[in-house]
Amino acid sequence: MAEADSAAGRIVTAGLVVIGDEVLSGRTKDRNTGYIAEYLTNIGIDLVEVRIVGDREDAIVEAVNALRARYTYVFTTGGIGPTHDDITADSIGAAFGVPVDVDPRARAILEARYAGKVEITPARLRMARFPAGAEPIANPVSGAPGFRIGNVYVMAGVPAVMQAMLDEAAGTLSTGRRMLSRTIELRLPEGAIGDALAAIQKAHPGVLIGSYPSFDETGFLTRIVLRARDESLIAPALVEVAGLDGKS
Amino acid sequence: MAEADSAAGRIVTAGLVVIGDEVLSGRTKDRNTGYIAEYLTNIGIDLVEVRIVGDREDAIVEAVNALRARYTYVFTTGGIGPTHDDITADSIGAAFGVPVDVDPRARAILEARYAGKVEITPARLRMARFPAGAEPIANPVSGAPGFRIGNVYVMAGVPAVMQAMLDEAAGTLSTGRRMLSRTIELRLPEGAIGDALAAIQKAHPGVLIGSYPSFDETGFLTRIVLRARDESLIAPALVEVAGLDGKS
Repeated sequence: MAEADSAAGRIVTAGLVVIGDEVLSGRTKDRNTGYIAEYLTNIGIDLVEVRIVGDREDAIVEAVNALRARYTYVFTTGGIGPTHDDITADSIGAAFGVPVDVDPRARAILEARYAGKVEITPARLRMARFPAGAEPIANPVSGAPGFRIGNVYVMAGVPAVMQAMLDEAAGTLSTGRRMLSRTIELRLPEGAIGDALAAIQKAHPGVLIGSYPSFDETGFLTRIVLRARDESLIAPALVEVAGLDGKS
Repeated sequence: MAEADSAAGRIVTAGLVVIGDEVLSGRTKDRNTGYIAEYLTNIGIDLVEVRIVGDREDAIVEAVNALRARYTYVFTTGGIGPTHDDITADSIGAAFGVPVDVDPRARAILEARYAGKVEITPARLRMARFPAGAEPIANPVSGAPGFRIGNVYVMAGVPAVMQAMLDEAAGTLSTGRRMLSRTIELRLPEGAIGDALAAIQKAHPGVLIGSYPSFDETGFLTRIVLRARDESLIAPALVEVAGLDGKS
């Protein structure tokens, strides 16, 4: 599918690295990807690629380095807790080739949070370890911060914590011209409209036209999604797609 | 986290490529990754990496070629329908460097399915296009088959269809020694057990120990998951993890 004319506005892109053996084993069903995808779309950032990797430093380094060279921003989720299998900070340090050590700001956040309640064990102090040059991302839910280094935003895997960190990070992001989206539902199978739809796509190269079929007891339902950064590009294509309903 | 001793049994690995702009825009929440991850784990295949890419040939080719060189099997979902945005067959052909054309077996399947009901339009015939050398994967749900070429299994994106194709494909897969998994739930925050858990992991290098925190109105809940291919490796580590409950 041809990309819409980038002259229509500045394009800001993102990659996402989901980190966790539990997602790859199927034990945990990842909900962060869908949330982040929708969130970024809504603020005018195009999520272009997602990689899900296990708790292995080589895999994390490879994915982060591949994506941070390609996209405006990279987000990661998972692996920043207090246990031995939380290796994201060390892996990001390795990806950037910088040392990782306890950050005094992060330590102060933990000390304020835990003061008089629990001891800051070596395990808890792991959550204050940042790669050199990283800036904290506040965590209003449970205290222990994420961090940003370069164009990479490192967030928790627990959905409620990740969502709060993404809100914190969002204020610092440059955003592009938002991709607009219109959906038409047709009570037809894809096969009945495929040829006509291809002709409409060809006639409207500035619009990304996607076709998503489903079916249930009531029959076929095909959702046609038209996307562009300019409403005036979508409108005429939308009229043509709507006209398919009476044709088959 | 150290990989369990591979001498404990043959390791069969897999990569997954999820194809679709609609997943990256957040419009569709991908449910296939979680299903496939759990399915493969249950039959003794380790899912090692997932990549989600858009409907772009260069992105699909790169992901498929990277993963098929690394893992025993690669699965793909999405992009094999009848519309112009279904470019997976052509992209897989490009990845393997082979031509793509209508496959007589796939065409016969569609003809039998549609006979006397609907016309086989050029759009519908797109679903019979296979890269040279591919073998069909039956689709008992809606007819149009997926295909296998080399170690790459190309399946639909609609969950019900994908699941049926995975069942069809599973009979042809070599499987390894299954990764066993035991979970213990502790009503403690991760930070309270992190140091002791790290010592247990160090003492049991043949067991992969993961720690997954959550919290709700009733307090902290940390799930400790112990994985290995040999039950006799898990059992003694499990006793030690269970003993953490009274310590903090």
